[in-house]
Amino acid sequence: MREVQVLGVGMTAFGKFLDRGLKALGGEAIREALADAGVAAAELQAAFVGNAMAGLITGQECIRGQVILRALGLGGLPVYNMENACASGSTAFHTAWMAVAGGMYDVVLALGVEKLYDEDKKKSFAALGSAVDVEAAAAFARELNRDRGADAAEGAGERRSVFMDFYASEAREHMARYGTRREDYALVAVKNHGNGSLNPKAQFQRARTIEEVLAAPMIADPLTRLMCSPIGDGAAAAILVSADFARRHEGAKPVTVAASVLASGAPAARRAAGVVTRAAERAYRMAGVGPEDLDVAEVHDASAPAEVFLYEELSFCKPGEGGRLAADDVTALAGKLPVNTSGGLLAKGHPVGATGIAQVVEIVDQLRGRAGARQVSGAKVALTQNAGGVLEGEPAACAVHVFTV
Amino acid sequence: MREVQVLGVGMTAFGKFLDRGLKALGGEAIREALADAGVAAAELQAAFVGNAMAGLITGQECIRGQVILRALGLGGLPVYNMENACASGSTAFHTAWMAVAGGMYDVVLALGVEKLYDEDKKKSFAALGSAVDVEAAAAFARELNRDRGADAAEGAGERRSVFMDFYASEAREHMARYGTRREDYALVAVKNHGNGSLNPKAQFQRARTIEEVLAAPMIADPLTRLMCSPIGDGAAAAILVSADFARRHEGAKPVTVAASVLASGAPAARRAAGVVTRAAERAYRMAGVGPEDLDVAEVHDASAPAEVFLYEELSFCKPGEGGRLAADDVTALAGKLPVNTSGGLLAKGHPVGATGIAQVVEIVDQLRGRAGARQVSGAKVALTQNAGGVLEGEPAACAVHVFTV
Repeated sequence: MREVQVLGVGMTAFGKFLDRGLKALGGEAIREALADAGVAAAELQAAFVGNAMAGLITGQECIRGQVILRALGLGGLPVYNMENACASGSTAFHTAWMAVAGGMYDVVLALGVEKLYDEDKKKSFAALGSAVDVEAAAAFARELNRDRGADAAEGAGERRSVFMDFYASEAREHMARYGTRREDYALVAVKNHGNGSLNPKAQFQRARTIEEVLAAPMIADPLTRLMCSPIGDGAAAAILVSADFARRHEGAKPVTVAASVLASGAPAARRAAGVVTRAAERAYRMAGVGPEDLDVAEVHDASAPAEVFLYEELSFCKPGEGGRLAADDVTALAGKLPVNTSGGLLAKGHPVGATGIAQVVEIVDQLRGRAGARQVSGAKVALTQNAGGVLEGEPAACAVHVFTV
Repeated sequence: MREVQVLGVGMTAFGKFLDRGLKALGGEAIREALADAGVAAAELQAAFVGNAMAGLITGQECIRGQVILRALGLGGLPVYNMENACASGSTAFHTAWMAVAGGMYDVVLALGVEKLYDEDKKKSFAALGSAVDVEAAAAFARELNRDRGADAAEGAGERRSVFMDFYASEAREHMARYGTRREDYALVAVKNHGNGSLNPKAQFQRARTIEEVLAAPMIADPLTRLMCSPIGDGAAAAILVSADFARRHEGAKPVTVAASVLASGAPAARRAAGVVTRAAERAYRMAGVGPEDLDVAEVHDASAPAEVFLYEELSFCKPGEGGRLAADDVTALAGKLPVNTSGGLLAKGHPVGATGIAQVVEIVDQLRGRAGARQVSGAKVALTQNAGGVLEGEPAACAVHVFTV
């Protein structure tokens, strides 16, 4: 397969934008990415559009990509509408990579976009709750509510905390097994909120102390609110091209996609290694690098403990040592392997379908040396990891990418 | 890019199955396709899953493919959840083809599945109404309802007929411009219902006379109910493999994917040719065949007039001659170019996301000479055309495939 490069990226600020829909958000990210790449809209040959939940939030269940592109005056290109819950953006990016690497197209757009905020916040929670087996979840909720004497509809609004309950339970298990401290988790939140304070596009741009993180309202022990990623709106885009196209093209330094791996969780009974570990091993092999070669990484910190687990699953450290990695500032901006320099999902925000490509935006900025106050000096090799949905306690989808310059 | 072949296909009966969900429908089609291909589930390397509307009907907005595969005991493979309204199935098939042709995988599953029937029929109509620009449609409905003094919510239930209104208006224009008769449209319905009567998996298996078609309740002049495709539930699956894999594999004769093209409609102002014509021209070029070489075709007869228009857009005849093609029995089972031998969307049924792959099922059966009472003798070259969504009066997505043995 051919070498693929990212020629340009763009993203909106992440946040709560009740007055902006998919078209406005997606359009802004696309225009910025095209300008960054120095590519005209007319040069695009296909669009890969990741979105997870617009059907339930905005009613736009079908042809989401076409509607966004048409509002920009674009049309006629093949549109691949992709979904993989919180990994929808990286799935779109991966499929775009596959299409260019396989020789189908030379210049394509990958877009991730999500509109989660709604006047009716219950809608947002219900949409997030659709990233599981909804039949099984409904059966579980009925069971739970029968015990509580409540009705099933009430249960829908609680689904968000089911995700956080899951993370909390894993966090407690890690504490019991490895001696990880709640302060270790809190330090991840401190780091990411600190990084977010340096990112003008982050949803939260306020640095937090460990005291503030620990004293924030408890969501599910040991997770306080500042250890949980927020709901958000936003979009991110990337222009992917063949290396041949990039060579002929004058403009910004291209970033090479050295590995692109999409994987799904396996049934619990047949699970030799976790899906993140499997995907990462394949990505390292494909790129011909190891975790020791990485200069910077963006990972799926849907909760602060998740980032600790990911350190281990991505082989940044040995099993059980993730907490120490955070405590020792190894993953801080000035550390040996800075992680989530963008602020991560915790601070930059997590508009589901946009997240995977927003990670790419940060990495491209880092590898081009234009990350401003967040710049990791001399970054040459980077990784992104994005996960989506949960089945039997494991991500339903996980994408890992390695980038080099 | 590499040659790709279809090694096996499977599908459920199409119809109204209030007691069967995505898992049951999808699972049946997958099992049948694997058995037909002689491929073990463990050999699959990826799954491409087309579904358009499960979020609005069943609540399973995210990770639809993973949930279906997991219920079968499958998991761990990369899942690409694809959506393109009524062309979701062909989009999944096309993307699966692209992945194998590009060298990413050797053995993949393409699945199309849809659950449209619900106890609450309004839900089904609302879901179908999401295959347009819903913001624009809502604005239009508000406008319309202000004139009528009704509220916007009432308008939602009428969206289905907006699609049929669109077809009806095109049908009347064709009559005025080319002298096409309502009987010509009716004959398409007679043909497809006749073919459906020979297909044990068709939703409607009753042959109809032209008198019955013309006397059926009027939906939107000149469309009677028997000229409109129904709502339905169902699933269809195909196993796509590299030619290398097929050579090493003992079993049924593989069918070659000679062309696979996905396209989107263009903004009205920049529309040189229609999206179907553009897609077909590229597909003929890619396959190195012309319409005169086709032995059989499955096309998107969402309404009977649509099939007449498609004859022209796919160059089965000259512009304006589509009505005559139907009247002259050219596209009948015994004609020179039999079209929709399966019964088409009109009689086989139209479970949105399943339709594109169900077309492939029929074509593979035809090219393998196992189509039973519907067999087109000696069929060697075939075409499928599947469309989805509407923007500015044109399909938002259109996929054309050419198959050979």
